[in-house]
Amino acid sequence: MKRSIEDTSVVFIGAGNLATNLAKALYYKGFRIVQVYSRTEESARTLAQAVEAAYTTDLSSVAADARLYIVSLKDAAFVQLLPEIVAGKENALWVHTAGSIPMDVWAGKVNRYGVFYPMQTFSKQRTVDFRQIPVFVESNSAEDTRTLKDIASVLSENVYEADSEQRKSLHLAAVFTCNFTNHMYALAAGLLKKYGLPFEVMLPLIDETARKVHELEPRLAQTGPAVRYDENVIGEHLQMLSDEPDMQEMYRLISESIHRQNS
Amino acid sequence: MKRSIEDTSVVFIGAGNLATNLAKALYYKGFRIVQVYSRTEESARTLAQAVEAAYTTDLSSVAADARLYIVSLKDAAFVQLLPEIVAGKENALWVHTAGSIPMDVWAGKVNRYGVFYPMQTFSKQRTVDFRQIPVFVESNSAEDTRTLKDIASVLSENVYEADSEQRKSLHLAAVFTCNFTNHMYALAAGLLKKYGLPFEVMLPLIDETARKVHELEPRLAQTGPAVRYDENVIGEHLQMLSDEPDMQEMYRLISESIHRQNS
Repeated sequence: MKRSIEDTSVVFIGAGNLATNLAKALYYKGFRIVQVYSRTEESARTLAQAVEAAYTTDLSSVAADARLYIVSLKDAAFVQLLPEIVAGKENALWVHTAGSIPMDVWAGKVNRYGVFYPMQTFSKQRTVDFRQIPVFVESNSAEDTRTLKDIASVLSENVYEADSEQRKSLHLAAVFTCNFTNHMYALAAGLLKKYGLPFEVMLPLIDETARKVHELEPRLAQTGPAVRYDENVIGEHLQMLSDEPDMQEMYRLISESIHRQNS
Repeated sequence: MKRSIEDTSVVFIGAGNLATNLAKALYYKGFRIVQVYSRTEESARTLAQAVEAAYTTDLSSVAADARLYIVSLKDAAFVQLLPEIVAGKENALWVHTAGSIPMDVWAGKVNRYGVFYPMQTFSKQRTVDFRQIPVFVESNSAEDTRTLKDIASVLSENVYEADSEQRKSLHLAAVFTCNFTNHMYALAAGLLKKYGLPFEVMLPLIDETARKVHELEPRLAQTGPAVRYDENVIGEHLQMLSDEPDMQEMYRLISESIHRQNS
């Protein structure tokens, strides 16, 4: 009988936002998550319970017989802990999930390695639909690249090979697309709170702004005072932000950038 | 027989993005658009044809017998042309559609006036669903406020009264929520183009970032290197933007602002 890809036994090193969403997605698709490691017991236990796995907070107790180890830690912690993480398990397949860490961080530490980068914003409180999420994989062997693509394809319809340079570029673009965009929402929420207005009133605008770029190039979708270069409105807005110098400076810089890009 | 609100005859002064979308929405709901004025003949004719109206490029030829005049011009043009626009029609109901122009711009110029502000990003190329769009109205009389609310309610499920101060605040928040967000998409699109990667790959991330704030407060929805304060990644991204000093400065400012808001 042929073994199916879902028989791959998986250990998660890390139980943060990304690990939680990825582990659950794999679990729901039938993968066996054997163990979860996290520095904090609560995180380890919470995720382990959700995916019927064992858990540990002690790196030296991590199971040595899994086929795939998925490391999803803060970038700095990952690099620092790497030798301890892989000790005694150098022949398993190791992947990390970070946009900005090159694959060769593994070189010389383990024999089979790669990257499994689902490009999405993950929060523990929210379950996302993995099918649409682009997953970028690479590895140091054609066979393991195939394995990673097969695993990713169980979860997502959008699986790509990308090298570390491409992934770094994607990650930088994703910071603008997602994190900075979300911060614009957060700044608006702060303003509305100050004026006693509900944030919910912005949701149709947020949704349409997102939908619009499915059809129109973002540059061509732009509207508002900056692209019209409506100096009266811009001046008044800057005035309204005079007690928020950081927001005022962001307003000025972004408006100038919009005007420059469209003129 | 009681006249229904849809019998209101409407003249549009302006045929830009907002006017086009609003005129079509009214037309589809059975309102009679009698005439469209625009400075340029092509804009006037295109919108007039879409809503079975007459058109003109001459302000002195604007019909004098409509019940409602909707003025949707660039803010600067509006204020400058106001006396000419209203000449001979001082007893009709006049509204403008601008977020940042106070209602009292009309005072002393016409007798019945107000504001009809649909808060959305409009492009001529794209038809939007008006039902979800929040529409903020005000006028100088209770009766006309009721009329404007009745008209808005034919189009939208979200109709509010808002005074000029509130509307100005909403407009400022909308610039962050929509225009600046869209510019983050545009900056990402520019980066991806430079790296030879397709913008489409960002769409699931854009959609999820928007959906997320329906459930989570934006501040709590934040992810990525700035909120983790991952100095390695931030430093590397700034380095990658070294030939784009404006983007680099935006990256730095927004990241600092995210870190400050979440620490």
